[in-house]
Amino acid sequence: MAVTVVGSVAFDALETPYGRRHRILGGAATHFSLAASFFTDVRVVGVVGDDFGPEQLAVFDRHGVDTSDLARVDGERSFFWSGRYDAEMQNAETIDTQLNVLATFDPQLSPAARDCSVLFLANMQPDVQRRVREQCPRAFAVGLDSMNYWISSARDSLVEAIRLADVVVLNDAEVRMFTDEPNPAVAVRRIRELGPRVVAVKQGRYGAALFTDDGFFAVPGYPLELVVDPTGAGDAFAGGFFGYLDRHAGAELSDNTLRCAAVYGSVMASFTIESFGSERLAGLTLAEIEARFEDFGRMTRFDGQPAALRSAGG
Amino acid sequence: MAVTVVGSVAFDALETPYGRRHRILGGAATHFSLAASFFTDVRVVGVVGDDFGPEQLAVFDRHGVDTSDLARVDGERSFFWSGRYDAEMQNAETIDTQLNVLATFDPQLSPAARDCSVLFLANMQPDVQRRVREQCPRAFAVGLDSMNYWISSARDSLVEAIRLADVVVLNDAEVRMFTDEPNPAVAVRRIRELGPRVVAVKQGRYGAALFTDDGFFAVPGYPLELVVDPTGAGDAFAGGFFGYLDRHAGAELSDNTLRCAAVYGSVMASFTIESFGSERLAGLTLAEIEARFEDFGRMTRFDGQPAALRSAGG
Repeated sequence: MAVTVVGSVAFDALETPYGRRHRILGGAATHFSLAASFFTDVRVVGVVGDDFGPEQLAVFDRHGVDTSDLARVDGERSFFWSGRYDAEMQNAETIDTQLNVLATFDPQLSPAARDCSVLFLANMQPDVQRRVREQCPRAFAVGLDSMNYWISSARDSLVEAIRLADVVVLNDAEVRMFTDEPNPAVAVRRIRELGPRVVAVKQGRYGAALFTDDGFFAVPGYPLELVVDPTGAGDAFAGGFFGYLDRHAGAELSDNTLRCAAVYGSVMASFTIESFGSERLAGLTLAEIEARFEDFGRMTRFDGQPAALRSAGG
Repeated sequence: MAVTVVGSVAFDALETPYGRRHRILGGAATHFSLAASFFTDVRVVGVVGDDFGPEQLAVFDRHGVDTSDLARVDGERSFFWSGRYDAEMQNAETIDTQLNVLATFDPQLSPAARDCSVLFLANMQPDVQRRVREQCPRAFAVGLDSMNYWISSARDSLVEAIRLADVVVLNDAEVRMFTDEPNPAVAVRRIRELGPRVVAVKQGRYGAALFTDDGFFAVPGYPLELVVDPTGAGDAFAGGFFGYLDRHAGAELSDNTLRCAAVYGSVMASFTIESFGSERLAGLTLAEIEARFEDFGRMTRFDGQPAALRSAGG
């Protein structure tokens, strides 16, 4: 069992009310793979420039992530994103985006990368997502993320990519934009009618919602008093989610397994935003992960008492 | 055991994507008392004008709500609010507000109303909330709601009113505005430091969060495919919450009782928004309430599997 993730490995420049980082390791595939590495074997497929050096590679190595499908292009630079968060820490203002090596990214996966049990197509051009998906016929679960840019500029292609996915992971603004439907439950139903069995809706500080054949499940956001950098929360959610699925689902995705996956996803997202970039995950222990998973249980449990209503008792 | 609620009984004119109502029964104390009436005895304290007639009174009567503390002023008109919702159905645009009889509302409660076990101070001028609270020394739980208008125009008085409350019920925008703190967990901690043991944060479609001595609890929003009119959702939440508390808490508020109260509050809010005004609650059955309470259980349960993490299994 192994997860293959395909997407951006990048440098980020970040500014939040709690500090700045001028050039740190980022990218959707980075945050995903580091989070997933706590659960299963992970192989990252991507492309970087010659500004990506031993220091960045060492981050993946320390987490046991296989980087043999990470291509390095000499004479070019890695994808770069620069963003700023306000005090609310919910939405980033993009200051600069430099595609660089990502502009022509269209990977041919190695046999090992193709032989994955779980495939995650991180946010990228949807035609590329489709071509990657076709290279991995054995995956029992294919996840897909996207963003507003592709919804508006490549909608038809994104529809086709979504048809090939089992689990769509989007935030609530993207769900609304993709379907042009303001009611979240109706919007998700329309996405599921395209083919995916599962839609996981990321809701920022409010947590995440899961829509499956068996119905609706919600996990709240972890009530952190200090959020340092929200970057990568959604990708870390997906990393925990699919990492857990790969380890536990086998070929069938039971509803409880999907629910636990969403909770582990929320656990990984909550740790990621406690520090800049991948800093918090670097020192994270398995005991901390399990303790926070149990926190989510305590945060959501209630035991109904019989005879709650008026007529039932007097 | 009985709940006394003090607040507005009004007429609303509403426009949503699903229709209009030109003049229907509304007001915070109305929505609260109808929702609470499914759990316990409710007495509504308020003032109406001579436009409030037998048709409106009959709504309270059908729910068994005691209206003997509802004063009727001849020659004046009831509080009137007119609002419009966009497709998102999250925020109302106020078109018109006519205080009318509410401008001089400063109630002297009857002995029966004072003898309540639970008191809910619906959104109103905070000095009035304080004077009402002092009239009800025996209440084991005092709830308080407010709104942006009082936070900006009567902040000092609102701070004093909050000091006298056990449970503060606000939406997340109000929590942020009252504390001037963007982080919800920090903002709620500051409110609790004023005195209230419990803060319930209403989050619209995302549900509600409960902060208590024992920690954090979250209940999701019910995933309705059709929301007809969000008016009164927050008051119906409070009605279910305090109605349940009155029936079940006795003098001590255990954490599980508070959690179940928040879930029953969410149940009542979810029914309220399925139709205009009090229409949905008119025909609501106890079986429907219990069935939806069980839905909330199904929507939030997950059973953690041991050995979820990498090192635990291989």
